[in-house]
Amino acid sequence: MPIYQAPTRDTKFILNEVLRLESFAHLPGFESATTDLTDAVIEEAARFCEEVAAPLNLSGDAEGCTRHPDGSVSTPAGFREAFGKYREGGWGALSVPEAQGGQGLPHVMGFVFEEYLAAANQSFAMYPGLTNGAIAAITVAGSDTLKAKYLPKMVAGEWLGTMNLTEPHCGTDLGLIRTRAVPQLDGSYAITGTKIFISAGEHDLTDNIIHLVLAKTPGAPKSSKGISLFLVPKVMVNEDGTLGARNAVSCGAIEHKMGIHGNATCVMNYDGATGWMVGPENKGLAAMFVMMNAARLGVGLQGVAQGEVAYQNGASYAKERRQGRALTGSADPTQKADPLIVHPDVRRMLMDAKATIEGLRALALWLGLQVDLAHAAATAEERAAADDMIGLLTPVIKGYGSDRGYAVATDMQQIWGGHGYIVENGMDQFVRDARIAMIYEGANGVQAMDLVGRKLGGNGGRAIAAFFAEVDAECAGAPEGLTAIAGKVAKANGELKAATLWLMQNAQGHPNNAGAGAYAYMTITGIVALGLMWLRMGKVAAAGLASGEGDKAFYEAKLITARYYAERFLPDAGALRRKIEAGAEAMMALPAEAFG
Amino acid sequence: MPIYQAPTRDTKFILNEVLRLESFAHLPGFESATTDLTDAVIEEAARFCEEVAAPLNLSGDAEGCTRHPDGSVSTPAGFREAFGKYREGGWGALSVPEAQGGQGLPHVMGFVFEEYLAAANQSFAMYPGLTNGAIAAITVAGSDTLKAKYLPKMVAGEWLGTMNLTEPHCGTDLGLIRTRAVPQLDGSYAITGTKIFISAGEHDLTDNIIHLVLAKTPGAPKSSKGISLFLVPKVMVNEDGTLGARNAVSCGAIEHKMGIHGNATCVMNYDGATGWMVGPENKGLAAMFVMMNAARLGVGLQGVAQGEVAYQNGASYAKERRQGRALTGSADPTQKADPLIVHPDVRRMLMDAKATIEGLRALALWLGLQVDLAHAAATAEERAAADDMIGLLTPVIKGYGSDRGYAVATDMQQIWGGHGYIVENGMDQFVRDARIAMIYEGANGVQAMDLVGRKLGGNGGRAIAAFFAEVDAECAGAPEGLTAIAGKVAKANGELKAATLWLMQNAQGHPNNAGAGAYAYMTITGIVALGLMWLRMGKVAAAGLASGEGDKAFYEAKLITARYYAERFLPDAGALRRKIEAGAEAMMALPAEAFG
Repeated sequence: MPIYQAPTRDTKFILNEVLRLESFAHLPGFESATTDLTDAVIEEAARFCEEVAAPLNLSGDAEGCTRHPDGSVSTPAGFREAFGKYREGGWGALSVPEAQGGQGLPHVMGFVFEEYLAAANQSFAMYPGLTNGAIAAITVAGSDTLKAKYLPKMVAGEWLGTMNLTEPHCGTDLGLIRTRAVPQLDGSYAITGTKIFISAGEHDLTDNIIHLVLAKTPGAPKSSKGISLFLVPKVMVNEDGTLGARNAVSCGAIEHKMGIHGNATCVMNYDGATGWMVGPENKGLAAMFVMMNAARLGVGLQGVAQGEVAYQNGASYAKERRQGRALTGSADPTQKADPLIVHPDVRRMLMDAKATIEGLRALALWLGLQVDLAHAAATAEERAAADDMIGLLTPVIKGYGSDRGYAVATDMQQIWGGHGYIVENGMDQFVRDARIAMIYEGANGVQAMDLVGRKLGGNGGRAIAAFFAEVDAECAGAPEGLTAIAGKVAKANGELKAATLWLMQNAQGHPNNAGAGAYAYMTITGIVALGLMWLRMGKVAAAGLASGEGDKAFYEAKLITARYYAERFLPDAGALRRKIEAGAEAMMALPAEAFG
Repeated sequence: MPIYQAPTRDTKFILNEVLRLESFAHLPGFESATTDLTDAVIEEAARFCEEVAAPLNLSGDAEGCTRHPDGSVSTPAGFREAFGKYREGGWGALSVPEAQGGQGLPHVMGFVFEEYLAAANQSFAMYPGLTNGAIAAITVAGSDTLKAKYLPKMVAGEWLGTMNLTEPHCGTDLGLIRTRAVPQLDGSYAITGTKIFISAGEHDLTDNIIHLVLAKTPGAPKSSKGISLFLVPKVMVNEDGTLGARNAVSCGAIEHKMGIHGNATCVMNYDGATGWMVGPENKGLAAMFVMMNAARLGVGLQGVAQGEVAYQNGASYAKERRQGRALTGSADPTQKADPLIVHPDVRRMLMDAKATIEGLRALALWLGLQVDLAHAAATAEERAAADDMIGLLTPVIKGYGSDRGYAVATDMQQIWGGHGYIVENGMDQFVRDARIAMIYEGANGVQAMDLVGRKLGGNGGRAIAAFFAEVDAECAGAPEGLTAIAGKVAKANGELKAATLWLMQNAQGHPNNAGAGAYAYMTITGIVALGLMWLRMGKVAAAGLASGEGDKAFYEAKLITARYYAERFLPDAGALRRKIEAGAEAMMALPAEAFG
């Protein structure tokens, strides 16, 4: 069975040494987040994910979910018990304020747990996975009545939330949705329509499920300007908080998918189900985006997570499996063959994985900290700066993070050779599970367009300018020993600046030039952002080594990996810039009939 | 259900206009290969693959193979009937000389059919897939008795062949194999051991299966210098050619795999099975390499094939599915949304696919022609030159071809969004099936080492020098209108030359530098080789347009795609060269404990 050990050492390095969480102790929400406490939470999180969630991953994939004739859905064996422990542990409410019944830790701690849980068992993680986003959307836009009735149970993990956007004929283009919401005399709405691809739409983990559903009221404007958001419980909730009758919403089918077999992906039928509007009429997308942005960051973390667990199993096999001899002579003459890890091309895949995953983790946790700072920083400027960075880099961590997670999972499967193709060894599950992260919560091409079409120019390009400045400052301030790496990061940042300039000059009148370059632009941004992270980690590691204290081998590995990243990833920035500058002409020239 | 239409127009373009097959009519083996005949064979091949093999692809994936308690194996419904038609059509012996009972067409025609069949149904294609290689190995190294007894039935498709190398503890490192072959008084050998991952090791398509098995004779040298090759029939063959008793070889299990579910991947148990040596003792690898080289070219074709069929289904969805509006304004205001194909990022994936697949097809068929020329060209020099090019580019078409096939399949699944993740739509099968081509017949990292460690320096670097010269000549001779593309190809070729020089200067004393750069080197070579192909195709298309005859839209698409390839693929060569020049230092610096 595949292994999983939560990377607690790396997490603590990032939180304590790179982000220096304790330095924010004066801010609201950080008061209790001492290193002692966060370290203890990290260890507890690791234990839960390793001991409870991970052992159900392979079996959950094999068994999948079962929909019964009455529309009820059974999750794989063990999931229900595991979820009981999750609820008891209060894991769902780690970053929910204490006033709301949560644990009141910073959001960045929620990110840590999200990564571990998705690595241990992505299908399991997806059951509670959207609930925090639903809580956030209801908190921001819901009426006091809705908040009082639903939030405490959701925070407690007694009820879970879902997100209902997609319909058979529309996913990305939400303006086309057909689900109708007809107002009733009591202020509720009767919701009718079919939603598909609803993760955890039905299951046996909780007594109730709280669906957040996009629908159109009668006479609403066509297009996405006429969409409202509704809260639709699976089971009606009485005034006293007890459960009442079943609502007219049911699971019509569960999908057969490439991966995440342990999660029930449901077709949800709304047959005049009772729902309540969340936020103003026709402004449902704004509230839903609160939920979606959280989900997109979560999907980025899934990329890190699937990459990490695949990497651990790739590394373990590379150290155990013996095949061939080192090019430099037998590394272990007492044995008939050397371990795979002596071979440079196996190393290449392991180092690619290590550089990617540790870099993405640093980026994700840094963004997690920005989520906290966007709420809690002392000045409006700081809060806006944090918010800018979240907006700019959410599509990047989602898109680039999930792309890289899939690539790493594929490489780690490759290390296993033919044995990686055999289902029982679990390596193919990492690839199949990682694949969905590139698709859902906005396909990665949509993320790229969000970055280039919306985030780049917002507020006069303030966010990207701040990002450039941050990278430049880090490069300029690089200590001796890191100047070579800093030079390569600065060069890649220069490519990103050139690509930005090109888009500014060539995409205004020719929007297809923006579309044609968007994906490459998202990728360069990811490459540079990880360069920034490696520079920061390298700096901390160098200082640690100079101090003579701490974990020498760990710091040395960070420095080597920073160098490897600079040598092996940053060169792509130039090639990508040239692709962007090629523009849309050849890409768009052919008539549709020329394809296929 | 997914569609598949064999790309006959493109095949004919390559054979008739780019390779100009008729110009070789004076050579032995080409006499009958008139355009009339080859065009007719192409159409017949398309019909068989579209009408017989393709309809069983999705159902074969869903059903898989079944091993019964007696060790027999049932293939998916319809496979047996389809194979009957395959045998009747003589498809297995297309390129086998008429003297041996085949159809006597050039090998390149066999390549055409291999691509179509693997695209239509890779699992099905793999049943007869290794038989031609087995025929070649027996023809080259087998005794006259073995040839007379086995080849006619194999050529006729009545018996199929398999390749038995891998054992549980060794795949790439064949020196470690443990299967024993003990000589018997009658000149046969008793073979004992376990082989795994044996494609089509057992099935119900034919009465007999001819296994080619690597084993060690008593006292054979350890290492790969002590391996012999044996022919082991599933059912003993009497002197009169009728079938006798079952041999002591049986299928112990079939694997559960990520993909190619319709093909039975078997654990084969040899319990003192009777076999006959093929070729000299301890020289079994040489004979097996005849088979393996054919198999590697076939795997490269699988990359083309899975990319092609995925592309067709990606393109068809992009033209039908409506979502969002073109960035330049509604492309189809009569509908509520425009088709996906108006979006540049969808186009990007389609153009990437088109440029990749058509380029790889040209490369594969050019290599197929080299296989013919290596046998039939008029002079020893020409034959050696063809052989050099096959040796050099076999690892490239296998490694780069399968990498790109997987990438294209993944992109085409991406176009389908969430619907691409649903098994019934078939897009995920293309990804899962394409994945194996990167692993089997020598994992792609092994191909890269074969290229850099063996092929590059062979005969004083004669092959790569010839390749450089061929690219340079094509660039120098580019007509007006193609000079921009030629300039980019020449630049990429320059990067490849620089990388070659760096390896010559830095890998001799430091072999890890070769290992560290091998994969990137293989990839640049693939990129440049496709650049060469696009230049050639572009040249023919430009001439066709100038002539005013032929299919104008087709030629225009070729020219646009050549330009797109140059703009969007060739820039990577420089980035890859820089990665090679980074060397092995950072890659190999960390101790094994630093991983995982």
